[in-house]
Amino acid sequence: MKTAVIGASGYSGEELVKRLLGHPHVELAAVTSRTLVGQPLARAMPALSHLAGDLCFTTSDPAALAAQEAIDLFFLALPHGVASEFAQPLYEAGKTVIDLSADFRLGSEKLYKDYYGQEHPAPELLHAAPYVIPELANDDWKNARIIAAPGCYPTSIQLPLIPLLRAGQISPKSIVINSYSGVSGAGRKVAEDYIYCERSGSMKGYGMPRHRHLSEIEEQLEKAAFADCPVQFNPHLAPVPRGIATTIVAEAKTSLDALYKSWGKAYETSPFVGILPSGTFPDTKHVVGTNRCDLSAVFDSRTDRFIITSAIDNLLKGASGQAIQIMNLKYGFEETAGLS
Amino acid sequence: MKTAVIGASGYSGEELVKRLLGHPHVELAAVTSRTLVGQPLARAMPALSHLAGDLCFTTSDPAALAAQEAIDLFFLALPHGVASEFAQPLYEAGKTVIDLSADFRLGSEKLYKDYYGQEHPAPELLHAAPYVIPELANDDWKNARIIAAPGCYPTSIQLPLIPLLRAGQISPKSIVINSYSGVSGAGRKVAEDYIYCERSGSMKGYGMPRHRHLSEIEEQLEKAAFADCPVQFNPHLAPVPRGIATTIVAEAKTSLDALYKSWGKAYETSPFVGILPSGTFPDTKHVVGTNRCDLSAVFDSRTDRFIITSAIDNLLKGASGQAIQIMNLKYGFEETAGLS
Amino acid sequence: MKTAVIGASGYSGEELVKRLLGHPHVELAAVTSRTLVGQPLARAMPALSHLAGDLCFTTSDPAALAAQEAIDLFFLALPHGVASEFAQPLYEAGKTVIDLSADFRLGSEKLYKDYYGQEHPAPELLHAAPYVIPELANDDWKNARIIAAPGCYPTSIQLPLIPLLRAGQISPKSIVINSYSGVSGAGRKVAEDYIYCERSGSMKGYGMPRHRHLSEIEEQLEKAAFADCPVQFNPHLAPVPRGIATTIVAEAKTSLDALYKSWGKAYETSPFVGILPSGTFPDTKHVVGTNRCDLSAVFDSRTDRFIITSAIDNLLKGASGQAIQIMNLKYGFEETAGLS
Amino acid sequence: MKTAVIGASGYSGEELVKRLLGHPHVELAAVTSRTLVGQPLARAMPALSHLAGDLCFTTSDPAALAAQEAIDLFFLALPHGVASEFAQPLYEAGKTVIDLSADFRLGSEKLYKDYYGQEHPAPELLHAAPYVIPELANDDWKNARIIAAPGCYPTSIQLPLIPLLRAGQISPKSIVINSYSGVSGAGRKVAEDYIYCERSGSMKGYGMPRHRHLSEIEEQLEKAAFADCPVQFNPHLAPVPRGIATTIVAEAKTSLDALYKSWGKAYETSPFVGILPSGTFPDTKHVVGTNRCDLSAVFDSRTDRFIITSAIDNLLKGASGQAIQIMNLKYGFEETAGLS
Repeated sequence: MKTAVIGASGYSGEELVKRLLGHPHVELAAVTSRTLVGQPLARAMPALSHLAGDLCFTTSDPAALAAQEAIDLFFLALPHGVASEFAQPLYEAGKTVIDLSADFRLGSEKLYKDYYGQEHPAPELLHAAPYVIPELANDDWKNARIIAAPGCYPTSIQLPLIPLLRAGQISPKSIVINSYSGVSGAGRKVAEDYIYCERSGSMKGYGMPRHRHLSEIEEQLEKAAFADCPVQFNPHLAPVPRGIATTIVAEAKTSLDALYKSWGKAYETSPFVGILPSGTFPDTKHVVGTNRCDLSAVFDSRTDRFIITSAIDNLLKGASGQAIQIMNLKYGFEETAGLS
Repeated sequence: MKTAVIGASGYSGEELVKRLLGHPHVELAAVTSRTLVGQPLARAMPALSHLAGDLCFTTSDPAALAAQEAIDLFFLALPHGVASEFAQPLYEAGKTVIDLSADFRLGSEKLYKDYYGQEHPAPELLHAAPYVIPELANDDWKNARIIAAPGCYPTSIQLPLIPLLRAGQISPKSIVINSYSGVSGAGRKVAEDYIYCERSGSMKGYGMPRHRHLSEIEEQLEKAAFADCPVQFNPHLAPVPRGIATTIVAEAKTSLDALYKSWGKAYETSPFVGILPSGTFPDTKHVVGTNRCDLSAVFDSRTDRFIITSAIDNLLKGASGQAIQIMNLKYGFEETAGLS
Repeated sequence: MKTAVIGASGYSGEELVKRLLGHPHVELAAVTSRTLVGQPLARAMPALSHLAGDLCFTTSDPAALAAQEAIDLFFLALPHGVASEFAQPLYEAGKTVIDLSADFRLGSEKLYKDYYGQEHPAPELLHAAPYVIPELANDDWKNARIIAAPGCYPTSIQLPLIPLLRAGQISPKSIVINSYSGVSGAGRKVAEDYIYCERSGSMKGYGMPRHRHLSEIEEQLEKAAFADCPVQFNPHLAPVPRGIATTIVAEAKTSLDALYKSWGKAYETSPFVGILPSGTFPDTKHVVGTNRCDLSAVFDSRTDRFIITSAIDNLLKGASGQAIQIMNLKYGFEETAGLS
Repeated sequence: MKTAVIGASGYSGEELVKRLLGHPHVELAAVTSRTLVGQPLARAMPALSHLAGDLCFTTSDPAALAAQEAIDLFFLALPHGVASEFAQPLYEAGKTVIDLSADFRLGSEKLYKDYYGQEHPAPELLHAAPYVIPELANDDWKNARIIAAPGCYPTSIQLPLIPLLRAGQISPKSIVINSYSGVSGAGRKVAEDYIYCERSGSMKGYGMPRHRHLSEIEEQLEKAAFADCPVQFNPHLAPVPRGIATTIVAEAKTSLDALYKSWGKAYETSPFVGILPSGTFPDTKHVVGTNRCDLSAVFDSRTDRFIITSAIDNLLKGASGQAIQIMNLKYGFEETAGLS
């Protein structure tokens, strides 16, 4: 099967390229980038030169891509708004699309407008696109030809919380989330705020109280809880290139033991979820470079709250790794192909 | 005035030494360290060699130190438990002691035993020792001859919260705190967990749900609130040498404007508290190397909560800088002497 | 084929484990560690938990290991001196040994004693053990049952220099080498000098003028040059976990073009050597996590010297990756198996 | 005395501002920046907010600045080429100028054109401007009204080498220099190559074989040696914000003891030069944040060469600290005022 990565010059694009080049069952047939058109992949991404063969960046033209008969599956690693411009013609041309942007993550057009500041560019596709964290989604998503890959923070939050909300084990109104992200979460953004000396040694919050990912987090948690989930979400930047560490506080409606049983059941067959014993805290160091999410929880009897911690690699389980995992499951490959 | 630093080889000891050597009104007359006895300060701490003259590390013997007539003021940069062994004879010999350990921070012997796992080593001194964050303490502490300098996390938490609790502007039962600390918070500890490659790229929680500093935080917040304050306190380690970034969520009992007014009033004349406009978030990068604490807050109308953020240098405002500030105020020097 | 890693708890041990667990043609049947005996691998190395199955650390007993019939190939990731204690009984029991220590790298017992400060522990094995950088060694090493994997610095130095010395393209007496290494080069050493806050922000030389690797570098360069090669070798530590950047100055005996031709010919079929155009400098960022060595050179007409630069991952091409590559070639697997 | 910093928004501009605000004998009366015009200093540089008062950035207009009667001394922290546009009118208006750019560092117009790619913009001023490393310059520079502050790499190189070349203790033709610099050496440059994720974990050479600083290095070394000094200069970038570690190889014409005696004599009264014992290597960690240069040397009897190492903070002794030191000496303040 032939695949393409549209917008391959960003950090999640680069990870997609790396994983597809090393994938046992698919071929990476095209990579596009407005800024790198014509350049050999091996030169633009020296770390991949041993895998890149003579693949070159081509132009990012939606119509031309849609006309490429040999390519079945397109990964979109583009900014929100732009992704739709590609998703629509590709979808109409009968292609399959896995979109890493925010364009198809929300069920509600209104929410999209509220959080992203513009009308949804392709509302008619919104409901065709399931939102897929593979460990949590029902299997019926596998027939979809357009799939929304979740955001990085939301993945680190839903994996620990969804099983608990489904089981009514925490109070939906009590959730306070703090996340620390590596700088690649901002993409390959060239701005003064992101130059080395500005981020080095810097820890700080940002985007509070209404970071864009909040819309996606709340929508999904509410689906699981069948109730309002007015979560507090506090994102921060830390001086590392990769990784997200998330810490969640929520009122306990059950025992720590029962919480662990819910997780155990939910992730029994999941190769990418690591459940650590209570008192051992997930460490980004142990998940960076993997598609894994590590989870752990403690119970505070002083406050009757759970403190739940998780760690992922924002570019893998939080973006490109999860997209590959989605592909693997949709096409019946081993779930871990290209990811270990 | 002559001063001494007991336990000068740790990171906060080193900062004390640096600030005292450059202080316009006091002389650093002795530095002690069990591991560095006999070594010239200039060799052990090359970054201070231009200030160190021929000062050498001497032995850490409480009785001998108490007998040193020329020295008036002793800074104790020692582990808890050990600090008391020095504080007691020094105090009895009529010396003044500023203790950076946890030994004299708590009012309650029982709390000390609960959190530090041992009987308090000098209970009779406990009530002689005021707990002093200079911006928040009443002036009567200045007569004390033994003073407890607060912990790093607690300083980053009390500076934003105490004025609000005093004014009844937040709900005491609703407080959730997440803090990220640089690795020097663990001191100069030589253990596998603290070697460079283990901490590099690592973000993780630890010590939840009952970190030792919780005892000190709750005791102080409750004094300010005249109410129970069962706070959730989630400490984390980040791969930087220095700095603490704290993010606090609490139910609002007033407007954001009123919150800022409380801060403005509380810190009107404080040279070391920076109040940033709502929407600008404190950054450890801007306070590391200073004795400053930066504060900011936003209000979330979705949840009726304040999200309050602060940043300090754990070794300065969180330890040695604050101890110098205490000395400055006690002895009538300018508050910023040796600290800018 | 079944393999074992002896001394699996260090950083190169861990990399061996990771690569062998993911290798398509071999099985990792045993891992030993004095400090981790009895522990599940998945717990000790959480980043590998998705690959580790129920493998546990066993004791490091040479005789017992030699008696394990099922295991053919042993990787020794042990300190020098200790490695010999395992190599000898394993070799005598008919096993194959790939040794990552310095014990079998030198041809000369005297040199070993000079540089490592002790008599060689197994001189009779010294000549049985070829020193193998696969890109540079003759194929006859493939029959050996004990193989010395080269050091990290020496690999980053020989790959660029050996083809040039063989072709007489640089002056053997003029070589000045400066290398910067990440901290993992020192292994998982628990000492004050290696704690996070001591290495963070620190760049410094060490071990000059006679670092231990100098013995290995000179011996190999002299073999290639058929002449004395009194090289100057300046190693340094940089605050990164991994990577070596090496810069070499040598008098040119030919044109830059001819130099590049020698490299091109030497590495024509080498999947792991990247030859960058003159003026593009190897960057550790692009090789860390790979088994690659990137090379480049410029000519300075002012001084008639070449300036040659290389970059490797000290734990992969400089240690464990190279050991896996050696195994692949010895046993006829694809050279890149387990390494891409 | 009133001073101004022109181009105060860059990293060396910011350091100048910080040191002048804390200086006991001068007042910082104006700061200019094209990008920050009108902004309060306290907001643009939060780390300095406790010192900044109500100083605001003003426009960078040479004529207007020259007309400011109250200001005597101007520091230029501007790119080369641009600096001259300010230096000339200020000089002509009778002001004193300390220029941190390259514009007045070279004695030769031709060299300037060769290395900086443009005609010298103010050749008539070139000879009015002494090049001043205070520890090495003759006192007659103190009467000059325009002074060239040296570059960062050149300072780390000349401090160890000039006394040895003056004494004929090393061979001028044999010098090979490798330097590693923190990223702030590139200034506050907003370009993809300088964003956090691109520099993090990256060690690499650049600008070889003819980095711009080579012109300045050779010109000064040749003056000291009264001979050609065709040095090899290999600059590199390391993933730290600040610091330069330099390692120099040169043929010995004397003993190590004599080398140390030359240094001892040259720097007998220098508060900012630290001479470390042979075998102890300068560490950037110990000089960052200070105006110090640490030096050390070993002798290699195998090659009859000295290996000389030095470390500075590129923004202090390599730029702004040295400029303040120049001011202190010119105006008769203590050499260390504002610098300790």
